[in-house]
Amino acid sequence: MVTNQLVKNINNTDLSVIPSEVITHAKKSILNWLGVTIGASYHETIEIALKLKDELDSSEQVSIIGRKERTDVLLAVLINGMASHIYDFDDTYLETIHHPSGPVAPVIFALGEKYNLPGDQLIKAFILGVETELRISRALYPSHYDTGWHITATTGCFGSVVAASILLDLTEEQMVHALGIAGTQAAGLREVFGSMTKPFHPGKAAQNGLLAALLARDGFTSSPQLIEAEKGMANVMSDTPSLHKINEQWGEIWEIRDNAFKPYACGIVLHPVIDACIHLRNFVNIDEIQTVELKVNPYVLEMTGKKEPSSGLEAKFSVYHASAIALLDGDGAQEQFEEAKVIDPEVIKLRQKVKPVPDEKIKEEQAYAKLILKDGREHEVFIEHATGSKQRPMSQNDLNDKFFKLTSKYLGRETINGLIDDVMNLEKAQSVHPLVKMWSNGS
Amino acid sequence: MVTNQLVKNINNTDLSVIPSEVITHAKKSILNWLGVTIGASYHETIEIALKLKDELDSSEQVSIIGRKERTDVLLAVLINGMASHIYDFDDTYLETIHHPSGPVAPVIFALGEKYNLPGDQLIKAFILGVETELRISRALYPSHYDTGWHITATTGCFGSVVAASILLDLTEEQMVHALGIAGTQAAGLREVFGSMTKPFHPGKAAQNGLLAALLARDGFTSSPQLIEAEKGMANVMSDTPSLHKINEQWGEIWEIRDNAFKPYACGIVLHPVIDACIHLRNFVNIDEIQTVELKVNPYVLEMTGKKEPSSGLEAKFSVYHASAIALLDGDGAQEQFEEAKVIDPEVIKLRQKVKPVPDEKIKEEQAYAKLILKDGREHEVFIEHATGSKQRPMSQNDLNDKFFKLTSKYLGRETINGLIDDVMNLEKAQSVHPLVKMWSNGS
Repeated sequence: MVTNQLVKNINNTDLSVIPSEVITHAKKSILNWLGVTIGASYHETIEIALKLKDELDSSEQVSIIGRKERTDVLLAVLINGMASHIYDFDDTYLETIHHPSGPVAPVIFALGEKYNLPGDQLIKAFILGVETELRISRALYPSHYDTGWHITATTGCFGSVVAASILLDLTEEQMVHALGIAGTQAAGLREVFGSMTKPFHPGKAAQNGLLAALLARDGFTSSPQLIEAEKGMANVMSDTPSLHKINEQWGEIWEIRDNAFKPYACGIVLHPVIDACIHLRNFVNIDEIQTVELKVNPYVLEMTGKKEPSSGLEAKFSVYHASAIALLDGDGAQEQFEEAKVIDPEVIKLRQKVKPVPDEKIKEEQAYAKLILKDGREHEVFIEHATGSKQRPMSQNDLNDKFFKLTSKYLGRETINGLIDDVMNLEKAQSVHPLVKMWSNGS
Repeated sequence: MVTNQLVKNINNTDLSVIPSEVITHAKKSILNWLGVTIGASYHETIEIALKLKDELDSSEQVSIIGRKERTDVLLAVLINGMASHIYDFDDTYLETIHHPSGPVAPVIFALGEKYNLPGDQLIKAFILGVETELRISRALYPSHYDTGWHITATTGCFGSVVAASILLDLTEEQMVHALGIAGTQAAGLREVFGSMTKPFHPGKAAQNGLLAALLARDGFTSSPQLIEAEKGMANVMSDTPSLHKINEQWGEIWEIRDNAFKPYACGIVLHPVIDACIHLRNFVNIDEIQTVELKVNPYVLEMTGKKEPSSGLEAKFSVYHASAIALLDGDGAQEQFEEAKVIDPEVIKLRQKVKPVPDEKIKEEQAYAKLILKDGREHEVFIEHATGSKQRPMSQNDLNDKFFKLTSKYLGRETINGLIDDVMNLEKAQSVHPLVKMWSNGS
């Protein structure tokens, strides 16, 4: 009985038995999530979604993160989960291409704010929610993903329902039903990628899971084996589910530790190129550059071969643009993929000097770059492992910088530092209300 | 482009070109839906779901049908859609085992009430919503259903989003995106059958579709070909989708005309047996009966072979119980499948006299019954087509009686007649507010 065992595992895992590195990595995940969420909090996608507040005449229970508006908890988790995925800049568990915080973090903050819960409970709920969704995503991957399902959307509801069940203090029996109510809502197709409905997915997974937990708490029933039944979620939505992966080595192996953070606001595949260009810019004046020669994994041109991007979103699929902004700005943050950079004449000029060559010997996390200057001098670099990879994870300082860049448009330096401090000490917090006050304090 | 063509077909179909028989059948569908919804409006499932009103501190925009409570539109369609499927007594489009009104009717009433829309708009939205979901269900059936999907849940969102899009006056482009936002939420597994999550499904489909239309109206984008894309909903959720069925002979063939209504509150398979027993009770006193001999399709014993049911739900899967209550009460309404009947000594005694024999010559819609009396006399009957079948559809009077039985616990005779009149004249109504007033007027 997979679901029963899973619920027992969850209920037997107190924060005290979770290794401290896992707790630290969870807090980093939350910080990273909070940064991308605040960063996108005024994006058009959120402006549209927030019209639901008026349409429903929603109560003002909890905050829309980064803004002054408040809505009921179900609407808030939808919108906050959505915001976090707009820039495609949130965390990634590479093994199943899953973005784990999106469906879970909105729930811990919404319930934490509504019920004034202490930080250690939130962290526990976050870790166990993420661990559950990652393990279920491992059980379904790869056939599930290859078929066309957006795995963050489909398995995300298990993360949110577990987090909500813990914070709402469900019994084991209730949690089994909650997983059933959540799992029968599992949905989300990759076909919508490139539209606003992609970021809608983690928000909806958060909302569906929270709804499931609320119903189960009050006695709503479902199948007690929704995940593993012969015609349950795993068998229906995957050709070859590996159900044993859900519970095996629970408490010994923590999948959340492999959750990675992106330093740059674009596909992982461009990260080594940006690293290389940021390194090389230290040795030249931009005006001196005649050619930017690149050797890249063939996948780079296949995925990001757009020579003349015409929008911020398209720029994220242009190795030419990524190289140019890295050389000019020394960064690849969201700002470097905004409209203003796309049409900047200096960027356009430099894009045209980028000459990428596919090379099968270059691995996906590697890149080779050579600057040929007008006077014939050359500078070259080979990146072995990109920043953000398992071998070169983002440091706490890198994460703090990323958080600052994403939020400084809306929040002052002091508030930003306060948020970073509070998140990185979340287990000691009596309440999340000070955090809420800070992130609602912006423009 | 299936989705584009579908949206054009919908937008080109005015009420004036819809045949009057179709409009009449739509009104019967709505009446039948409203009866089962009011009938289940105080069921435990609804009591639990209604706790969400307090949890969310919901605004009081529209009515929970049959009750005095009011909630916001998204919560109302969830709850009202849920109520309609609790008794498994709502309508059925047999060809794909789809219950079409559940996801659509809540949306027309919620938006009709909120925006005070006239009845002809509601009927148009209902018909085109139902037509869309049935055609999409035809395109996915049977592999989709066989795999384990609850087709009312999965394709229901297309019915609700179309109805909502019409009533919210979306442009064609917006409606295409709305279908994309709805379709990526398509979910619901048959694994939850037998639990409260089964009726949750049509409510959730109603809610997801309404949410999609609201977002699309304000500019939210999605895939414009979510249904037909290579990795779109149809291909991912069905092995052998027949996409041509979605648009073919639009406006010539109306699938909604094959929507059938159940006279008895149990599986279709028991309907001919109940018909037979109701016929035979006219010729005997119950006390005289020694044996009730039945010849039934083998499927009857396979599906409904429970000799001693211990709950109302189990009684729906007992040919013994169904025969006994039909002989005693002359009916098979919801009341006959409530706890009180299950433990009634008279019913128990009579159940034990029922002797069903499977017979492959008896078709599913047929039954043979013979009463053998204590003095040796016999009475027999053969039912060729059960009431509620295509050949013997429920008449308007039958539907009115069903409506009365379902609602008379909560509403007075005059109110009930008023509701029937208003629904059967819905296209002439300036507003649904008089209906709302009546159904909110109960105990």
